Amino acid sequence: MAATTSWVPADAKGDFTIHNLPFGIFSTGSDAPRAGVRIGDSIVDLKALANDPAAASLKSIQSSAASFAQPTLNAFAESGRATHKGVRDELQAILGDKDTLLKDNAALKKKVLVPASQAKMHLPMQIGDYTDFYAGYHHAFKVGVLFRGPDNALQPNYTHIPVGYHGRSSSIVVSGTPIQRPRGQILTNPTAPTKEPITSACKRLDYELELGCFISRSTKMGDAVGVNEADEYIFGYVLLNDWSARDIQAWEYVPLGPFNGKNFGSSISPWVVTGDALEPFRTEALENKTAIQPYLQETQKKNVYDIKLQVTINTDGKTDGNVIAETSAKNLLWSFPQMVAHHTYGGCNLRAGDFLGSGTISGTELRERGSLLEMTEGGKQDFEIGQGKVRRFLEDGDSVVMHGYCEKDGVRVGFGDVEGTILPAKAL
Amino acid sequence: MAATTSWVPADAKGDFTIHNLPFGIFSTGSDAPRAGVRIGDSIVDLKALANDPAAASLKSIQSSAASFAQPTLNAFAESGRATHKGVRDELQAILGDKDTLLKDNAALKKKVLVPASQAKMHLPMQIGDYTDFYAGYHHAFKVGVLFRGPDNALQPNYTHIPVGYHGRSSSIVVSGTPIQRPRGQILTNPTAPTKEPITSACKRLDYELELGCFISRSTKMGDAVGVNEADEYIFGYVLLNDWSARDIQAWEYVPLGPFNGKNFGSSISPWVVTGDALEPFRTEALENKTAIQPYLQETQKKNVYDIKLQVTINTDGKTDGNVIAETSAKNLLWSFPQMVAHHTYGGCNLRAGDFLGSGTISGTELRERGSLLEMTEGGKQDFEIGQGKVRRFLEDGDSVVMHGYCEKDGVRVGFGDVEGTILPAKAL
Repeated sequence: MAATTSWVPADAKGDFTIHNLPFGIFSTGSDAPRAGVRIGDSIVDLKALANDPAAASLKSIQSSAASFAQPTLNAFAESGRATHKGVRDELQAILGDKDTLLKDNAALKKKVLVPASQAKMHLPMQIGDYTDFYAGYHHAFKVGVLFRGPDNALQPNYTHIPVGYHGRSSSIVVSGTPIQRPRGQILTNPTAPTKEPITSACKRLDYELELGCFISRSTKMGDAVGVNEADEYIFGYVLLNDWSARDIQAWEYVPLGPFNGKNFGSSISPWVVTGDALEPFRTEALENKTAIQPYLQETQKKNVYDIKLQVTINTDGKTDGNVIAETSAKNLLWSFPQMVAHHTYGGCNLRAGDFLGSGTISGTELRERGSLLEMTEGGKQDFEIGQGKVRRFLEDGDSVVMHGYCEKDGVRVGFGDVEGTILPAKAL
Repeated sequence: MAATTSWVPADAKGDFTIHNLPFGIFSTGSDAPRAGVRIGDSIVDLKALANDPAAASLKSIQSSAASFAQPTLNAFAESGRATHKGVRDELQAILGDKDTLLKDNAALKKKVLVPASQAKMHLPMQIGDYTDFYAGYHHAFKVGVLFRGPDNALQPNYTHIPVGYHGRSSSIVVSGTPIQRPRGQILTNPTAPTKEPITSACKRLDYELELGCFISRSTKMGDAVGVNEADEYIFGYVLLNDWSARDIQAWEYVPLGPFNGKNFGSSISPWVVTGDALEPFRTEALENKTAIQPYLQETQKKNVYDIKLQVTINTDGKTDGNVIAETSAKNLLWSFPQMVAHHTYGGCNLRAGDFLGSGTISGTELRERGSLLEMTEGGKQDFEIGQGKVRRFLEDGDSVVMHGYCEKDGVRVGFGDVEGTILPAKAL
């Protein structure tokens, strides 16, 4: 029976309990970035732990020593789910209340436990390709209604295919990185018969609330991953804010999809929460009434996770914003295993470190919406964000904070935050 | 005055004259991949040359020794256009008829000159992100006519924006790599009111004739590259065959763009031809009658290259196919510097090694078309490919060869070939 409480101070109502133990890449001072695991307000320095003779009994951790010294988690991810589980099990043991290996070794504790407040977090993986799906049904439907009315809200392919597109990996940044308002071509009068664009700073800047996963196993070109094996190809999950310039996107995206409206920045939370940690929170995705193709049919009916997702907007450099939206990551029509199966069905190869986004996740109610576009009816209505302020789209200086956690039967597993603050557009 | 003939046998009518000297990554036997330059049927082993004391006078080559030992050209590309030019100038000197440094040093020649027939070519760069544009005007127009008729062939944004989308970098392969026919969801009756897809091997497999460029300089998120500086961010050019599954793409691509219809493989030629080598072949792009935004306005009016591009289909394992299409890379509405400027205008960062495709390049006549889709009126007519054979789309075993070269005033600079052979779809 795994330990359920830790001698390391960790709020049972916090994100980083002993049930979680997410992996990340951190550095302190001028030390090189390396692998760590978060518990409470501390980080376990995996490189230091794996290399200490006092930890010789921790076989999985020791065997991953070379991976833990890397500046990304790619090598560790590639070592496979059994190894990830082995490492997590050993950590859960030594961080458990009754274990003495680390708890009673002051020298080792000093070397291995780093206050999270002293660490700088980095991108956890070197990302090869980034793919963004569109699996948040309520978002896709709402946006479709705004653009085409309720009768044609969704394209005919939507319930047959986990629709997705290739995104931009170079501009994926870790939480805390400021996001500069993009410039681009926009139409000042989109409904005019003659389309005359101007160049301008984006006037309809938005966030998108998403869940993302990292791929752990590379595949060969031509090989397809079966939907029921796909979980083995997923290293873990992070929160994703897929910043969107609605006006730039609207003008550019037909016929080849979003480009500059999306590629100026995407922010992710730094701690990779494993499928093993999320296992107790499995639930069923939204019902798909369409008869889907065999390659997308899962035997696991509880194919998504009930992760509570929250959005807060802080303004003027303060941190007193209210939660303006709350929904669950279960609001998907397609699961991540289905996304993986579809992505590879045609022969496209995956590489460890590839990143998949879910698409914006929304519920059906106003305060369950994962983007301002939805909450303001396409920018036509104000939305109250608290402190007497309203927004239609984001203003310079706005800090968007997304938070995610699971809670069930007294067990809590969280993602921490992904935060990004909007900087003014550059003069050009 | 640079040398115009070489003591190394190099056909003046061949692709790899002394005027060219393209860079690539090659290996021989079990030796590690390393940088080389092609001349005639030989490869100059740049790693071996840079490390030999006999070449001490070649300062640019010597200073790039560490880059030449890498398994990709990324580090060399990042060293900047002045370095690339310095290396090329030194090579042009020692390979010139009158120079004796290499010519008269039998031991050095033996170490440094490798028969191309003994070398295995590799991807020249580690590609971060791949972006495919749609700048081939005649292709975009023709495809638009096929789908929407001549009055609405082009979207209103087409003449304002170098339209592009993010492609898949993991499946970019070097010439000679077989391409497996993809499987996917397709509609058996696309015009039926109810859309019922089946899964099938692609029935409308096509090639796309493109030119691609590699980025040499990384930029910071938020920074835009000026259109008149953009040439300095381009390392060089290769041929690109952007394989396309027309039936998979047709069903999946609305609203977010092509996905599995494109991501199963893209083939490139192995030798990176520099802008310096292409300089004599500059010409003007197609006229754009739209008043374009200032950030896209170039002072260099000769903003594209007149590269002759040819397509051949070989069948049944033979190499006796005819050239079925011939056009020029000047048939672009947008230049590569305009693509770079647009790509970064919103703040998207580039990384050395990023790859940009032009989009399919076609002329206006039947035998100037860069895809079968265009030559068969959307798969409705047979097209004669020689030897008494016809095609509407590609069959298993078909080998598509694209060739490109420039010729002017007796000077020839070529790309060699990009070849790929279609393997049958895998049973699933």
